[in-house]
Amino acid sequence: MDYREAGVDITAADAAKARIKALAKTTFNASVLTEIGSFGGMFRPELGSYREPVLVASTDGVGTKIKVAIEAGVHDTVGYDLVAHCVNDILVQGALPLFFLDYIALGRMDPVRVEQLVAGFARACAEFACPLIGGETAEMPGTYAPDDYDLAGFIVGVVEKDSSLPRGVREGDVLLGLPSAGLHTNGYSLARKVLFETLGHSTSSELPELGTTLGAALLAPHRSYLGALEPLLARDKIRALAHITGGGFAGNIPRVLPEGLGARLLRGSWDVPHLFRLIQKGGSISDDEMARTFNMGIGMVVVVSPSDLHDVEHSLERRSETSYVIGSVVRGAGVSWEE
Amino acid sequence: MDYREAGVDITAADAAKARIKALAKTTFNASVLTEIGSFGGMFRPELGSYREPVLVASTDGVGTKIKVAIEAGVHDTVGYDLVAHCVNDILVQGALPLFFLDYIALGRMDPVRVEQLVAGFARACAEFACPLIGGETAEMPGTYAPDDYDLAGFIVGVVEKDSSLPRGVREGDVLLGLPSAGLHTNGYSLARKVLFETLGHSTSSELPELGTTLGAALLAPHRSYLGALEPLLARDKIRALAHITGGGFAGNIPRVLPEGLGARLLRGSWDVPHLFRLIQKGGSISDDEMARTFNMGIGMVVVVSPSDLHDVEHSLERRSETSYVIGSVVRGAGVSWEE
Repeated sequence: MDYREAGVDITAADAAKARIKALAKTTFNASVLTEIGSFGGMFRPELGSYREPVLVASTDGVGTKIKVAIEAGVHDTVGYDLVAHCVNDILVQGALPLFFLDYIALGRMDPVRVEQLVAGFARACAEFACPLIGGETAEMPGTYAPDDYDLAGFIVGVVEKDSSLPRGVREGDVLLGLPSAGLHTNGYSLARKVLFETLGHSTSSELPELGTTLGAALLAPHRSYLGALEPLLARDKIRALAHITGGGFAGNIPRVLPEGLGARLLRGSWDVPHLFRLIQKGGSISDDEMARTFNMGIGMVVVVSPSDLHDVEHSLERRSETSYVIGSVVRGAGVSWEE
Repeated sequence: MDYREAGVDITAADAAKARIKALAKTTFNASVLTEIGSFGGMFRPELGSYREPVLVASTDGVGTKIKVAIEAGVHDTVGYDLVAHCVNDILVQGALPLFFLDYIALGRMDPVRVEQLVAGFARACAEFACPLIGGETAEMPGTYAPDDYDLAGFIVGVVEKDSSLPRGVREGDVLLGLPSAGLHTNGYSLARKVLFETLGHSTSSELPELGTTLGAALLAPHRSYLGALEPLLARDKIRALAHITGGGFAGNIPRVLPEGLGARLLRGSWDVPHLFRLIQKGGSISDDEMARTFNMGIGMVVVVSPSDLHDVEHSLERRSETSYVIGSVVRGAGVSWEE
């Protein structure tokens, strides 16, 4: 007997490694000291301009969005999603990316698929100046179905200690919402159940209200807000950020508010995209359940001082970033809604 | 319909989070600036004593050792394994741990199981002075069977640039092998196929030659060599390290040897533990296939100058660490065997 008969193909893994190595290299900068294939990725950070640098690290997955990717046969977008999600998570603390690592686990080692996934990582890593310095690709027959896989991403960034967020949030601060590109990477188990099981659609269903196939709408890449928000962070115009991921508004906005303060959101202050309405109607889902499962069209909430509002809106506009005033910081706790 | 009916239980997830938070806190040191639950974990590294600090990052999983954990109903050991594996991977570059993050994906959110896994992370993180500063726990029905799960770990460490390994490996250097505690985290798909399918054993089978149940032997925790090797790294007595993981000797020793040099290993220079012999005989597996799948009883290979050998052996002995001279560095490439 050999390892291959037990479902683990080391030769296919070596082929995948060569593809990964070449793609990762396109994301490197002068701080990266090792090629992919070392036991650990070595990175010499440029911290000379920081008084008190703090590393900010985060890990995440893309959930069962992968199931949609598999059905549609498109794998680079979930790779991109994973990096964008991680970049947003450390941005919430005011941090800019230093480097990224990935974990891919598959039921069957498929070098072509691994290359598509890593191409997605590499595209995002290049876009966000965040080198892909290492990773692990594991073939795990028995845990994953032959065609199935899972992803985890890991990012490290840096922030000046005194500039880290949240910082100085007060009653009366304005909540600005920045639009998401779709579900991003949350709520797919519920969305798939409603859209595919209850409504009987497939990824290739053309839905006129979406203007595209359902697969394309569901796989729309997770947006990163790094480009839009970096200049505002540099100018100290942001008091807090909340990345609207699993748990929705209620699960994420309170994470960055001080004790004694809550968020008051204005229902109808932005247009909820059709995809969310389709899911809500198809599954007869309550407003509350929708808001604690999905981002409802808002991917990032920016907390700003009322006196900075005009400046911030103007800066976002110049970067072609739409924003909506969706509420304010109030005394209390959690998230409440104003009709 | 709601998220729970689609298989995702946010309330159970919140219960798990509270348990994780308390366990992670037991691993914190003064560098950790955030509690678990922030979007990113903040860590202020103490780098004052470094001339040119380099961050070393690595990610890994524990493969289908998880399947054994599930059958045996024991989950804290695979948590420990994951941290020990990651600690060893950056040790190979000479780096000491700064912090760790985990990714847990499950078919069904089970707060008790999550607590057991995280208890394993926390025990290892405390032992290796490597705080657990963040993580992600994802419920993914459809990807994982209800009772199944996967783990990924991410570690960041630091090394002085001029002290990073490998460094100065030469022809004639000695290869010292340090004993593993068992399969560590590699080759479980093949081991399970032979032991459970071909030989019909279960995790509760008492095997006299192992002196324990098969489950206990297979779940023996991955050893970290940090404690044994840190004093030797500090005294500059090590030229290279190779962590014997997936790919075995041939897949790992050449990764740390310069172009033009290979490893010559002495067959029989250490006792191959019974567990490996049992698998080899049960599956009629060739010597070569065994050596490229399993660690064969050697978890870490230490490359030392012949003039330092006595000193290194003595230092290891004082720390109750066994070592075997298993071969030497020779002209050539890859790994060859001397009978």
